[in-house]
Amino acid sequence: MWNNRVTEILSIDYPIIQAPMAGGLTTPVLVASVSNAGCLGMIGAGYLEPGQLRSLIKEIRELTDRPFGVNLFIPEDFNIAKPEFDLAFKRLQPFRDELNIIEEVPSHPKPEDDQIRFALLLDVIIEEKVPVCSFTFGIPSAPIISRLKSAGIILVGTATSVNEAVMNENACMDIVVGQGSEAGGHRGTFMGNAGNHLVGSLSLIPQMTHTLSIPVIAAGGIMDGKGFMASLCLGAKGVQMGTAFLTCKESGAHNVHKEAILQATELDAVMTRAFSGKWARGIKNQFIKEMEAGQITVPDYPVQNKLTGKIRKVAALKNDSRYMSLWSGQSPRLAKDQTVIELIGNIVLEAEKIRASFK
Amino acid sequence: MWNNRVTEILSIDYPIIQAPMAGGLTTPVLVASVSNAGCLGMIGAGYLEPGQLRSLIKEIRELTDRPFGVNLFIPEDFNIAKPEFDLAFKRLQPFRDELNIIEEVPSHPKPEDDQIRFALLLDVIIEEKVPVCSFTFGIPSAPIISRLKSAGIILVGTATSVNEAVMNENACMDIVVGQGSEAGGHRGTFMGNAGNHLVGSLSLIPQMTHTLSIPVIAAGGIMDGKGFMASLCLGAKGVQMGTAFLTCKESGAHNVHKEAILQATELDAVMTRAFSGKWARGIKNQFIKEMEAGQITVPDYPVQNKLTGKIRKVAALKNDSRYMSLWSGQSPRLAKDQTVIELIGNIVLEAEKIRASFK
Repeated sequence: MWNNRVTEILSIDYPIIQAPMAGGLTTPVLVASVSNAGCLGMIGAGYLEPGQLRSLIKEIRELTDRPFGVNLFIPEDFNIAKPEFDLAFKRLQPFRDELNIIEEVPSHPKPEDDQIRFALLLDVIIEEKVPVCSFTFGIPSAPIISRLKSAGIILVGTATSVNEAVMNENACMDIVVGQGSEAGGHRGTFMGNAGNHLVGSLSLIPQMTHTLSIPVIAAGGIMDGKGFMASLCLGAKGVQMGTAFLTCKESGAHNVHKEAILQATELDAVMTRAFSGKWARGIKNQFIKEMEAGQITVPDYPVQNKLTGKIRKVAALKNDSRYMSLWSGQSPRLAKDQTVIELIGNIVLEAEKIRASFK
Repeated sequence: MWNNRVTEILSIDYPIIQAPMAGGLTTPVLVASVSNAGCLGMIGAGYLEPGQLRSLIKEIRELTDRPFGVNLFIPEDFNIAKPEFDLAFKRLQPFRDELNIIEEVPSHPKPEDDQIRFALLLDVIIEEKVPVCSFTFGIPSAPIISRLKSAGIILVGTATSVNEAVMNENACMDIVVGQGSEAGGHRGTFMGNAGNHLVGSLSLIPQMTHTLSIPVIAAGGIMDGKGFMASLCLGAKGVQMGTAFLTCKESGAHNVHKEAILQATELDAVMTRAFSGKWARGIKNQFIKEMEAGQITVPDYPVQNKLTGKIRKVAALKNDSRYMSLWSGQSPRLAKDQTVIELIGNIVLEAEKIRASFK
């Protein structure tokens, strides 16, 4: 009934992808539950070490024999002088004081480290024959794409504008995810300033499908059968949902994070660079407010991400939502504390009802 | 086939409302063409004098006997000291120089003037028995609402958040328009900062319909049958479209404005306070760029709107798009140079096709 080009390409029952949220949210049980329910579970591997990824893949394979995927961040070049880096670290001292953190200045980051890690993660994906690989923050080089394609891996790109989507199509991606401004977490923008690429899904998706030949997956603000059906009407061949899966019982999100989303309204999910140096959407909390109020200069991703890592980690250990990154899309009022199978079952039921209402 | 609560309340065939774009765009021929096509034409009367509104209503009645509506701006209190006003005027001198405008400092604006004009516009609407009246930038007082309701006039509010929509429902509005972040022109926000009320339609509409009992109309980025059907899936009972009607042959938009939209991409339609002092979305041009680059302080609406009036007017006379307000939503790639009947016919045809695909 829901078969289309995307379900065929991905060998799934429903064209629903669980967004590859990085940072430990995509536990094996979450990924496997999504895949077992006939959708595509995804590991957010952006911050993982190769060994960690391999373990997760093996754990997931214990739990499901259905397809799943891995998402990687395209490594970015960056350049920050030592004094600037030290200063950016110093600016975060009030937050460390608040949390009683004693931390030395972290080692100065090198772009090469991320590039090496990216190459090793790719090796794991190929060796483990992961069925699907998606990318955020850019498009891999042509040789990498060839290598993955030769290994029979389905490739999914991420775009926040029509031009970025066209670049994905030209690079031979099989599918592209159109990330509307409603989406939670990091913007996938890789051409121009992400702060200017905030196009609502209702505008972005039909303009993409109008231009592209490869299938488009809608992402951003989709939580239920309404958003799923709306996306299909806009010409998308499926949806990718983050926040909706984040509050599921199986997700690895911190309880404080889940609770913050379940209590939030649509205006609480704001754009910020404060946590990582890259624009992302999350529930406004003390950290975002203080960084804004102090007009604190924030170095680009991934530098700021490294600098705030300990603060976020310790805050999480202390159940202190004030200093955690509470990523969320713009539809928190529709989030529910439920199981993956309940979420997907409700989507399909509601979608059927909407279909029937059009007969 | 498209009958629902909104078509019943408004006595129209298709639940499609032409957005009440102010500033001379909603010519009698545009409004009447929309109403004659079975949808709801609307006069954008925000900036009109009572006599002008009465003439327009009479002209429209010559062209159609179908229902149409009028939109009013709720007058806003403002307070600007004379020296500050003069300084804000002076800051715009480079633009006047560029356009060879010689202009005296305009008379100091008084909030009472707008309030008196608003009251007189209401009198015209009641005397002329206009079937529908919608409001932007707020909710009228309870006595005004009673008076309009007693006159049998259908009332439509505008909201950019769920809370604003609830306030509209509590104030006994018959229908509320949910304005997603994709929308062109002015944000209707009246609670809090409009710059923070940029919720994409795909998030905003289902969260509104989830909470409200009165029908919700989706607005923002809708250009065709895809957006129309998507809005219905999200729970909206109809759509309001601005940009799609703006480029129609019948609209009063300047040709330079239409052309700018027809040439634009989704990233060109940016948010700015530069023209009016109120957040609005339009095609980025020289005026927006220079005001941003110069970090020029802009007084609140309606003061800045008054101060830039002559610049925009002369620029339009000179066909100079650099200094005109080129309002547009985020879907300009879907805009077409067509007639109203073609636009509506295409929407209905495409919607039928989508419906059929779900059978």
